[in-house]
Amino acid sequence: MSLMIVGTMAFDALETPFGKVDRIIGGSATYAAWSASNFTNNIKQVSIVGGDFPQEEMDALAARGVDMAGVDVVKDGKSFFWSGRYHMDMNTRDTLVTDLNVLADFNPQLPEDYKECDFVMLGNLAPAVQISVMNQLKTRPKLIIMDTMNFWMDVALDELKQAISMVDVLMVNDSEARQLSGEFSLVKAATKIQAMGPKYLIIKKGEHGALLFHGKHVFFAPALPLEEVFDPTGAGDTFAGGFIGHIARTKDISFENMKTGIIVGSALASFCVEKFGPNRMKELTADDIDARIDEFVELVNFDISIIS
Amino acid sequence: MSLMIVGTMAFDALETPFGKVDRIIGGSATYAAWSASNFTNNIKQVSIVGGDFPQEEMDALAARGVDMAGVDVVKDGKSFFWSGRYHMDMNTRDTLVTDLNVLADFNPQLPEDYKECDFVMLGNLAPAVQISVMNQLKTRPKLIIMDTMNFWMDVALDELKQAISMVDVLMVNDSEARQLSGEFSLVKAATKIQAMGPKYLIIKKGEHGALLFHGKHVFFAPALPLEEVFDPTGAGDTFAGGFIGHIARTKDISFENMKTGIIVGSALASFCVEKFGPNRMKELTADDIDARIDEFVELVNFDISIIS
Repeated sequence: MSLMIVGTMAFDALETPFGKVDRIIGGSATYAAWSASNFTNNIKQVSIVGGDFPQEEMDALAARGVDMAGVDVVKDGKSFFWSGRYHMDMNTRDTLVTDLNVLADFNPQLPEDYKECDFVMLGNLAPAVQISVMNQLKTRPKLIIMDTMNFWMDVALDELKQAISMVDVLMVNDSEARQLSGEFSLVKAATKIQAMGPKYLIIKKGEHGALLFHGKHVFFAPALPLEEVFDPTGAGDTFAGGFIGHIARTKDISFENMKTGIIVGSALASFCVEKFGPNRMKELTADDIDARIDEFVELVNFDISIIS
Repeated sequence: MSLMIVGTMAFDALETPFGKVDRIIGGSATYAAWSASNFTNNIKQVSIVGGDFPQEEMDALAARGVDMAGVDVVKDGKSFFWSGRYHMDMNTRDTLVTDLNVLADFNPQLPEDYKECDFVMLGNLAPAVQISVMNQLKTRPKLIIMDTMNFWMDVALDELKQAISMVDVLMVNDSEARQLSGEFSLVKAATKIQAMGPKYLIIKKGEHGALLFHGKHVFFAPALPLEEVFDPTGAGDTFAGGFIGHIARTKDISFENMKTGIIVGSALASFCVEKFGPNRMKELTADDIDARIDEFVELVNFDISIIS
């Protein structure tokens, strides 16, 4: 079954307490595709890049089963560029530069065979772009998951709410959930956000893990405690890619299977932060992933039979 | 098997975003005893109070199997008083008043039958007091768990390190673990702190749950997502009391059983925060606790068989 990933492919400049890179491949769709392609080789990528984007990066994803026909290459344009500096806690960062470049005119026109996808992941983009993509679909996918950020709550709240109303799973971080709902309690925030449309809500809490809400049900997955978080860039997109990749592979959109998807996404994200940019993602093996998932099982597993 | 709890019994004045109380029963040993007494009725309490401490509060604990012979009552003294104001996030607070009163002269002399306890919980106190209690024991308990706080790292680090070297389980929050170890990464902090003596380290992260470290093993328990955290006072001591109460009841100090103890402690703490002071703890039934533990199981349980 096919998975469409919509998002940015970009260059990042990153500064963390552990080092600095001036120019490394980034973007939500890049991370999501690297992550999801561990589980499915039927991915349709939708993005936009400039003529400066390395062909070998496109080829590397294509070799993993990612169809790049939906990636618009603007030969005389420059790719989206973001530069940020992380604080010591790695949960907060300052944006130093945001050069939209070709992203400013991103108006994706889906190739014909993209219009009947089974699963869709909408990375963080202008809500109008997310809506436009959904409106081009000929059939309703089995599951649409959408990421967004506080910026769109500030400048495009109405469009954002429209986009949110069209998706199955919304994914935001804790402060975004609070801003969107006006509730401090994440439980109350989850109720309000589900009333906006999505039947499932994922709240990411960085090093503190992630919550999955569905009606009155809630599931929690921790982040793996790591010796070092080297570079958190892309961890959220990698998480999302692992989640939807697992769902696409298993073709099972039950709440039970989404829980497992959250664990898979968390495992993938725990690799992503070990090196700068997507570097760690490029060298992962299936054995690495299995071993990491086992660590998650050990991390949260306890014997309830002892209690009563 | 007997459990000795050493700590404060006090009055608190509390201000949270949800309300205010000028004078309510508090203290680490109060919360720990209410919590642990759900699991064992063989508790020996060690504390100090003034003549102002209500007899009915002592009687209420005695009725739950808590031996109050180790509680020094200074008839013409005043009980320890603490006043604090919580911020909106409920994870941070300002201390407004700390009146040590009788606690300033706390020099516990254990009754003879307290000197051969099986399990010991040392609440947050001056390290010299914690050491003195341990030195009065005639036999080595099966397990000693100790709480402390950043204040003692600032003013009595050498004594604190001595106390830590004598216990099996140290319990601190994340910022205290970082201060004590000089490491930002909690994984690295855990390694350094275990090298100081305790074979087990519990790192409390408030609403973000708790970690249990033992050698290379790590276990994580989330906090239950709640609609409202009404008053977090005593949650850590309630957690500790539930943990050691479970251990005392099962008489099993294995790492596997400690994991379950962490879940039991987390469940108890999730009740504690629902009302001001220890009020919620006083009305708990065994059914309430079982149901809450089931919620924890549902919160973290996922089907790994789906993955591979």
